Amino acid sequence: MHQTFDAALGINLLHVNQDGADQNRTQFDQWGIRCLNLMSSPGAGKTALLEQTLAALTPEIKIAVIEGDMTTELDADRLRRYGVPVIAINTGRSCHLDSKMVAGGIHRLAHEHNPAEFDLVLVENVGNLVCPAEFEVGEHAKVALLSITEGEDKPLKYPLMFQEADCLLITKMDLAPHLDFDLEQLVANVRQMNPRADILPVSAKTGAGLEHWFGWVRSHLHQSVNSALAIAP
Amino acid sequence: MHQTFDAALGINLLHVNQDGADQNRTQFDQWGIRCLNLMSSPGAGKTALLEQTLAALTPEIKIAVIEGDMTTELDADRLRRYGVPVIAINTGRSCHLDSKMVAGGIHRLAHEHNPAEFDLVLVENVGNLVCPAEFEVGEHAKVALLSITEGEDKPLKYPLMFQEADCLLITKMDLAPHLDFDLEQLVANVRQMNPRADILPVSAKTGAGLEHWFGWVRSHLHQSVNSALAIAP
Repeated sequence: MHQTFDAALGINLLHVNQDGADQNRTQFDQWGIRCLNLMSSPGAGKTALLEQTLAALTPEIKIAVIEGDMTTELDADRLRRYGVPVIAINTGRSCHLDSKMVAGGIHRLAHEHNPAEFDLVLVENVGNLVCPAEFEVGEHAKVALLSITEGEDKPLKYPLMFQEADCLLITKMDLAPHLDFDLEQLVANVRQMNPRADILPVSAKTGAGLEHWFGWVRSHLHQSVNSALAIAP
Repeated sequence: MHQTFDAALGINLLHVNQDGADQNRTQFDQWGIRCLNLMSSPGAGKTALLEQTLAALTPEIKIAVIEGDMTTELDADRLRRYGVPVIAINTGRSCHLDSKMVAGGIHRLAHEHNPAEFDLVLVENVGNLVCPAEFEVGEHAKVALLSITEGEDKPLKYPLMFQEADCLLITKMDLAPHLDFDLEQLVANVRQMNPRADILPVSAKTGAGLEHWFGWVRSHLHQSVNSALAIAP
């Protein structure tokens, strides 16, 4: 947990962050954009998943990416090859994106493009299984990734990320034959923390399971359309 | 980066942490103990490395472990099987150990044992490639682990951990045949951040490279003996 109360200013920094997240979400809603926040440990495969996602879905879904990294634009450059706008945010020493940083990303997106043209903004958070789960950025859903090389015990040891996730992607399934890995045990551990998250085993390398992930993204967008219809006059 | 300045108290929290770390180190020195701080992403293999280390070195080196986890004593229980004292610290929502938590661990060690009997305290930090690097706990050296499944780009993207490390263990080398992994590129990326760290590729599963790690630990202890002799009257 971070220092969350600034006594001099008399403000709770998590509340300030939450207010900013709500403003970002309202802005996305006004433009008809859905936003997903992708979070995981370093190297669990967020960027590899995004590469496959952009390659498969850009013909049908208009996507922009907000790419958070402490330093470098290495990941942003990987994703720019897919012809979508990629807004790179360097967090410096910060171990997570916060709503103010993402508001800056939204501002840049709106400055360089017509934001109402987009259907989906994918936010790739800093690689960290702890802190990003505490800081909402304005997303409509949280997507956590856990690679099978990290071990079945991680949902028990890092509970907040797994409690917060709407969708959990179990990545690098292609490595299963080379590991002592127990998928049932991992799923049971996730369920102790979160009975409702969708759990999708995938491999960005072989493509296994990715159709289920693409289907999850599509249904998430359709939920948006349906709820928009539901509140229409 | 965490909120590091408490304006109401007028104190820099990193300075307070550093003072506490210096006190812990002085205490270790008085007891003739060397302390290593092991840090990595979740699932990079800190506990597996410690299991092998305890199995190999406890006959010759008297070791205690301070085990940091947000929740659970799963890792502590794994290590207790090796017959060494394991002080478990649950950090709650905190994403790293700090010097105050480790001071509490030292206090418990001294309460339950004669601390002067020990040669080495191994601290296993919370799995996080970012925040633990900012908070010294009183260690004499920092040991970072990076598993080869995390990718060669991580030293560039998470620079502080790699800048701070005295020893970098490249773990899970047994998986190299199943990955597109370039050891030379990883080492080159580490060297951009840190020209002096010892870099040791290992596999806790096959045992490959572990003798070099055990040798590193032994030479670290001998440095301690030598410097103790050097300042003797």
